[in-house]
Amino acid sequence: MDGPDAGYDCGFLDDVVDDGRVSFDVSRREQYAGDASPHEPRTPDAVVWPTDAEGVSRVLAAANERQVPVTPWSGGSSLEGNPIPVAGGIVLSTYEMESIEVRADDLQATVGPGVVYDDLNETLARDGLRFPPGISSGDVATIGGMIANNASGFNAVRYGETRDHVRRLEVVLPDGRIMECGGDVVKTSAGYSLKDLFVGSEGTLGIITEATLGLDGIPEHRRAALVTFPTERDASEAVSEVVRFGVRPGAIEYISEGTIELIDEYADDLSLTAAPTLIVELHGNNEGVDEDVAFVRSICEDNGALGWESAAGDDREDIWRARRETYDAVRNYQEDLAPAIVGDVVVPISRYPDIVEALGEASADLDIFCPAVGHAGDGNLHYTPLVDADDEDAVDRALELNDRIVKRAIDVGGTATGEHGVGIGKRKFMEREHGAAVDLMREIKATMDPNGIMNPGKVIPDSNE
Amino acid sequence: MDGPDAGYDCGFLDDVVDDGRVSFDVSRREQYAGDASPHEPRTPDAVVWPTDAEGVSRVLAAANERQVPVTPWSGGSSLEGNPIPVAGGIVLSTYEMESIEVRADDLQATVGPGVVYDDLNETLARDGLRFPPGISSGDVATIGGMIANNASGFNAVRYGETRDHVRRLEVVLPDGRIMECGGDVVKTSAGYSLKDLFVGSEGTLGIITEATLGLDGIPEHRRAALVTFPTERDASEAVSEVVRFGVRPGAIEYISEGTIELIDEYADDLSLTAAPTLIVELHGNNEGVDEDVAFVRSICEDNGALGWESAAGDDREDIWRARRETYDAVRNYQEDLAPAIVGDVVVPISRYPDIVEALGEASADLDIFCPAVGHAGDGNLHYTPLVDADDEDAVDRALELNDRIVKRAIDVGGTATGEHGVGIGKRKFMEREHGAAVDLMREIKATMDPNGIMNPGKVIPDSNE
Repeated sequence: MDGPDAGYDCGFLDDVVDDGRVSFDVSRREQYAGDASPHEPRTPDAVVWPTDAEGVSRVLAAANERQVPVTPWSGGSSLEGNPIPVAGGIVLSTYEMESIEVRADDLQATVGPGVVYDDLNETLARDGLRFPPGISSGDVATIGGMIANNASGFNAVRYGETRDHVRRLEVVLPDGRIMECGGDVVKTSAGYSLKDLFVGSEGTLGIITEATLGLDGIPEHRRAALVTFPTERDASEAVSEVVRFGVRPGAIEYISEGTIELIDEYADDLSLTAAPTLIVELHGNNEGVDEDVAFVRSICEDNGALGWESAAGDDREDIWRARRETYDAVRNYQEDLAPAIVGDVVVPISRYPDIVEALGEASADLDIFCPAVGHAGDGNLHYTPLVDADDEDAVDRALELNDRIVKRAIDVGGTATGEHGVGIGKRKFMEREHGAAVDLMREIKATMDPNGIMNPGKVIPDSNE
Repeated sequence: MDGPDAGYDCGFLDDVVDDGRVSFDVSRREQYAGDASPHEPRTPDAVVWPTDAEGVSRVLAAANERQVPVTPWSGGSSLEGNPIPVAGGIVLSTYEMESIEVRADDLQATVGPGVVYDDLNETLARDGLRFPPGISSGDVATIGGMIANNASGFNAVRYGETRDHVRRLEVVLPDGRIMECGGDVVKTSAGYSLKDLFVGSEGTLGIITEATLGLDGIPEHRRAALVTFPTERDASEAVSEVVRFGVRPGAIEYISEGTIELIDEYADDLSLTAAPTLIVELHGNNEGVDEDVAFVRSICEDNGALGWESAAGDDREDIWRARRETYDAVRNYQEDLAPAIVGDVVVPISRYPDIVEALGEASADLDIFCPAVGHAGDGNLHYTPLVDADDEDAVDRALELNDRIVKRAIDVGGTATGEHGVGIGKRKFMEREHGAAVDLMREIKATMDPNGIMNPGKVIPDSNE
């Protein structure tokens, strides 16, 4: 019997895919049941892994005819349940579409959706180029997933989000139509920007099978500094000022005192000072970058900086270790704790000190240890409420904390998610953030995916939710 | 009798608009009949000028109910017939929505669609800020029109197109619904990017009634240089190399030898050298900008530069006059000539020398004098075939020249329009450029504007065209 509970009969896939690129084995299917979030896994009924747009097209057309759900899958490192096949059906992995064609003269590369972020940048480095959003999960996340979620990270403050680099997409619609959106150019005014509709749509409108990305040169000169402050507000005020005065750092990261304590415990050779901390990196193609460093230092000192430690070239890695160890330090601490919610709000930069303060207040009020970091130059704050998985009340309080911060961010003109996407976890905030525009999102979804087969249960809340 | 030939009965507007903000006078209506293009004017049946989203909403809802066309109008400086009310009906001017609210701390401004580009930048300069696309018609063009056409110009090579600066839009749909798209943040992954659907949609999906724009600081250090080359190919190869080596000039403009000759005739105090010419401007917040100048100079010299004249600070205007006089110089020359087609193609930067060469070949082959300029760093080429209006054969050859260049641009991965929009003039190239994606544009248009009242006859070709 077909349906979400009993599972869908996906036997038709044998006749649709090439060379046995389908599996019904439970051990294989279980690999595509859950992502890196605490959202409940769900095992799909079948997994397929086509190698080109035509292969994807045949699967989608056949599934659409039978109204079988299809959930695209790439790296599986999502933090909001984005690729969990909550309705069952088919998981379509784009992982084997991993071609890379670099056109250095055009500062462009055309890539398959299965290319891993770090692998792409390793290839590009041979030509002195970079796809620069700077995500934390670069060793796992793929270009297809990054585009689907409009991912970004450390370097977006200077170089922009994934969206800003997508020039052209090849996509397959749910009915199997293959089309190109955009062009291999840096600008165009030729009609509706369909590529921008697919960027950030999390596989709910179609599947990306190829992308042309605009690239940046690797900056010749880089300086990094680790700066400590007496209070969280001082640190966040310094961020706000650096941005306001028009310096465009390559990165500007905030690390809360609680996070520094965790890192210090985990990696004690770093001997960090337990204090609210910023890591600032300045990029330039000439020695003028040192003037930017001096300017940022003066702003930090005006905001009460306690310590300033800086490095150039490859020595920057010593500075960055403090930030890069965060994830493992949190995992080390939480061992027996509940799988972590990773908060991901963005606010207008002038409100950054307020949202940092609001997080401190909510943590105290709800009695939760909640270390925070953030791509502060974008107004982006991440936080991880750490609670015992067996303590139901504490788990509820962690959820309550996230609700409060997300609502606060939205209410000051911000967004529920800066780079992780909506997935399952942020759907309930969409009406608050977008109001009547959610109806228009529904209408566009219904036009492009009338049978609702594409990644159901994601992004847009049901109208009765 | 109602209809496109006889005109629409728009008397209902008297009951819909505030304070007599409607006119049926022919002298008033004729002001909204044509834009700055050679496309045939058409006088609308009524003109309205609401002052807020609610006023726009009432007009659209009433027009939609009666299936009367509505064409939005702002500065009227379009070059492809974009705001010509070809089906008659109502012209809705957004010119009186001209509020400006600057939030300097957030590097943002919230503005009405009727604000003129230069006026906005004059206001922003008080805070050291700038909305930087750098369009040529900045004294006339409005923010609403710029967003609707995704306009850009001189400075897009460093600062991006209008799209890159739009954070949030308030829009009114054809059925009168008012909604907000996007947020006052620099990045977000919260659902479909509806704002990007409205940017560049030329008023065919709804009307923009307010926008939040991201701003840049005015760079502290600016240098400009005027460089001459022995051949058009040498000049365009130099552009391609500057971009490839990762220098991001504030502007890099190409001026063909023919254009220089026209300018020299019109403004003889400039005493320009008749040769293919580049104007390069470098921006920076520190003295390191001089290293960029030296680097660009070395690239130009490697490509055979004949002359190099540079200036800093306000003296840059002497350099820029050569470029700024282009429009008047062309008008001066063409007095008795046909209203000019202004070409606007973009190609991948490595193909810039090829498209410049193709234009030279087509001009020679078709025996047309066709001066050219271009925002070369973006791969954007403008050209103006100058022919006698009474010489039908010459006018046909001018159209043929434009066809050839647009098709060539599309065939090498480029676009029919980099910044002027599709309007009437570029519709016939949409299938060639977008293929099957044009069908999806039609489906989205039908979903959002089921009665087809919004700016009919623009952007998307009819399916039988």
